Amino acid sequence: MTHTLPLTDQLSQRAKNLRAQRGWGAMEKTSFIYGFPAPDCLPNAEVQRATEIALQTHGEWPLQYSGAPGNNGLRDILAQKLARDQGIHATRDNLLITVGSSQALALVCDLLLDPGDVVLSEAPTFLGAVKLMKNLGVNIAGVPLDENGVRVDELEKILKDLRAQGKKPKFFYVIPNFQNPTGVTTTLERRKRIVELAHEYDFAIFEDDAYYDLRFSGEFLPPLYALDGGERSFYIGTFSKILSPGMRLGWIVARPDLIAQLDQLKPDGNTSSFSTHVGWEFSKNGGLDKNIARVKAIYKRRHETMQDALTEFMPEGVTWTQPQGGFFIWVTLPKTVDAGEMLKAVRARGVDYLPGEGCYFDGTGKNELRLSFSYAPEDKIAEGIQMIAEEIRRAQRPS
Amino acid sequence: MTHTLPLTDQLSQRAKNLRAQRGWGAMEKTSFIYGFPAPDCLPNAEVQRATEIALQTHGEWPLQYSGAPGNNGLRDILAQKLARDQGIHATRDNLLITVGSSQALALVCDLLLDPGDVVLSEAPTFLGAVKLMKNLGVNIAGVPLDENGVRVDELEKILKDLRAQGKKPKFFYVIPNFQNPTGVTTTLERRKRIVELAHEYDFAIFEDDAYYDLRFSGEFLPPLYALDGGERSFYIGTFSKILSPGMRLGWIVARPDLIAQLDQLKPDGNTSSFSTHVGWEFSKNGGLDKNIARVKAIYKRRHETMQDALTEFMPEGVTWTQPQGGFFIWVTLPKTVDAGEMLKAVRARGVDYLPGEGCYFDGTGKNELRLSFSYAPEDKIAEGIQMIAEEIRRAQRPS
Repeated sequence: MTHTLPLTDQLSQRAKNLRAQRGWGAMEKTSFIYGFPAPDCLPNAEVQRATEIALQTHGEWPLQYSGAPGNNGLRDILAQKLARDQGIHATRDNLLITVGSSQALALVCDLLLDPGDVVLSEAPTFLGAVKLMKNLGVNIAGVPLDENGVRVDELEKILKDLRAQGKKPKFFYVIPNFQNPTGVTTTLERRKRIVELAHEYDFAIFEDDAYYDLRFSGEFLPPLYALDGGERSFYIGTFSKILSPGMRLGWIVARPDLIAQLDQLKPDGNTSSFSTHVGWEFSKNGGLDKNIARVKAIYKRRHETMQDALTEFMPEGVTWTQPQGGFFIWVTLPKTVDAGEMLKAVRARGVDYLPGEGCYFDGTGKNELRLSFSYAPEDKIAEGIQMIAEEIRRAQRPS
Repeated sequence: MTHTLPLTDQLSQRAKNLRAQRGWGAMEKTSFIYGFPAPDCLPNAEVQRATEIALQTHGEWPLQYSGAPGNNGLRDILAQKLARDQGIHATRDNLLITVGSSQALALVCDLLLDPGDVVLSEAPTFLGAVKLMKNLGVNIAGVPLDENGVRVDELEKILKDLRAQGKKPKFFYVIPNFQNPTGVTTTLERRKRIVELAHEYDFAIFEDDAYYDLRFSGEFLPPLYALDGGERSFYIGTFSKILSPGMRLGWIVARPDLIAQLDQLKPDGNTSSFSTHVGWEFSKNGGLDKNIARVKAIYKRRHETMQDALTEFMPEGVTWTQPQGGFFIWVTLPKTVDAGEMLKAVRARGVDYLPGEGCYFDGTGKNELRLSFSYAPEDKIAEGIQMIAEEIRRAQRPS
């Protein structure tokens, strides 16, 4: 008889569903693994100044419960920005400030999903969404992507198949701009088709637009939320890439009745008054716009540096995407090369990347990998890519 | 046929379980309703200074993902404080930094509870816990309190009854010090008995010690966690009453294997690096201890002022508790007076309190109310209590 620790057999179904996620380890010196903002994109001095103003002009509220002035102020700034930039018309009642977009993601899942439900997601997709949805015990149908984004023909086929089986998906999780992890953008025509299909098959559009503001080439495209008129859409965004991930500020745009329910499900009271007030003071009077312009220029340059290095060093048979914004390039290796296995040798040289496997729901993607150009020092990018290219060549050689 | 909005019939069971909580409205000028810290207890200047140091000395980490330096630093400070003050021995692996103690509460519930489960809770208890547990669709057995805290004889009776029905509770939610809302403290003898019963009946001890540091009279008592040796206990705490609720910093102490699972269930990545680093810098070198001493003196004075006013103004037949710390006094009115109904007249005079009903799971407590002495300006307390006393007299008169 083995001795079990107390309580271990008394956990909830949710806890029992938890599968330990494979850890990808710490970051190397030249790190392409995670979607961290560049250290020089983090506005320490401006945040210090915004904190001073917040603490000196808003009395108790930046440190108090509720933090209504900051929460209202930040939602007003977001509403203005969403109308001006995204063509999304929202009032305070359409907006919930969340603890980063990770909480936004979790709340929308909590609102809609029970174990056993069916959802649609781009595949590959954001690692955090893969982890979350797997742990919720839902069934995920992956919709493939190409260089123009979501394969709407495949989406329709999946929907027909599900309907034939008497199944109805709850939502389609989609990152239309500079998708994480592939970097591809879904075209306007395809966005329109997704909205049509959502109405026809009665599912929610769950649009994650974390990278919206970081477009460094190409034309603006309207969000699915704007095309749908917000009727059956959840639009989530974040300050993590345009201000600071450490402040944990994100948002959800949705119908007021759905926002009210999401607010009830939010388990932590209001999102930090401290972060909210500082984010508000930071964003006021064009402060956020100025920072976006600054960081966009930095990421544009890093992206070009990485594209140049890929062109220079990658062997025949390796292909990669050409994003118009965001943080990521997606690399497809020859079928025989396992990106997960190769990582060890690359790490030994002080470089890393994200093996593609973790971005799929079904363990495919073994010969794919994600490169973040956002974090590594710019003058180390070319050297890092050269090392990865050398390891690909080595992995292809018969041993 | 009525027209339903899209998605409204597609919500999760969790969302369908949601019951709109009765709102208690905005705060009046002289407010005794919520457990807000006094504005003069919020250390704006020191937080500004801590933010400066954090942003100037920790590079990217206060604004970056992960925020490991601050998270480690804060856990180390907590571990030292827990050993010194609470007699709780914890390492970093026993500690999870959470988004306030509300997230701590929600995470422990997520770890242990499925709909239909049975839990034990003090009754009355913390409003937020009542809301959360009701919404999770669990069955709650309320354990009554007296001036010495938990009625352990009643607890045992309930446990025997449940056992006879073949039911086993998952945990006992208990606030042993200056309980919210009653202000009572559970004696050492009773604490020991709760731990014995937890072992005998195999349930978890869920100890919420949000007010631990705010003892202004009486003797230190060891937490249930320390008496249990941490074997089957979750001990949650918060910076909300000793630093700032707006920073949303709380913690859970538990066995490392349970902390690892709670961390997996935490849906927002790490708790704000920004708050964590600022909280760490604030707390270092005795900063937190100094602030605790300062605010404790303020709350002690406010408490005395309120006790004096109650003694002076309350009519015959009204009784109230004598807390040794915390924020709250619990008032029992004559049976004929409905605290919820009386609130309107009190509000009309610019004063408020929390009707007791919201702190019970079963709608009892209609002739009870909670007074927070933490928030209202000290020089308004006596006048506010006098007005409430007058309204009690008016409510008792035959109309």
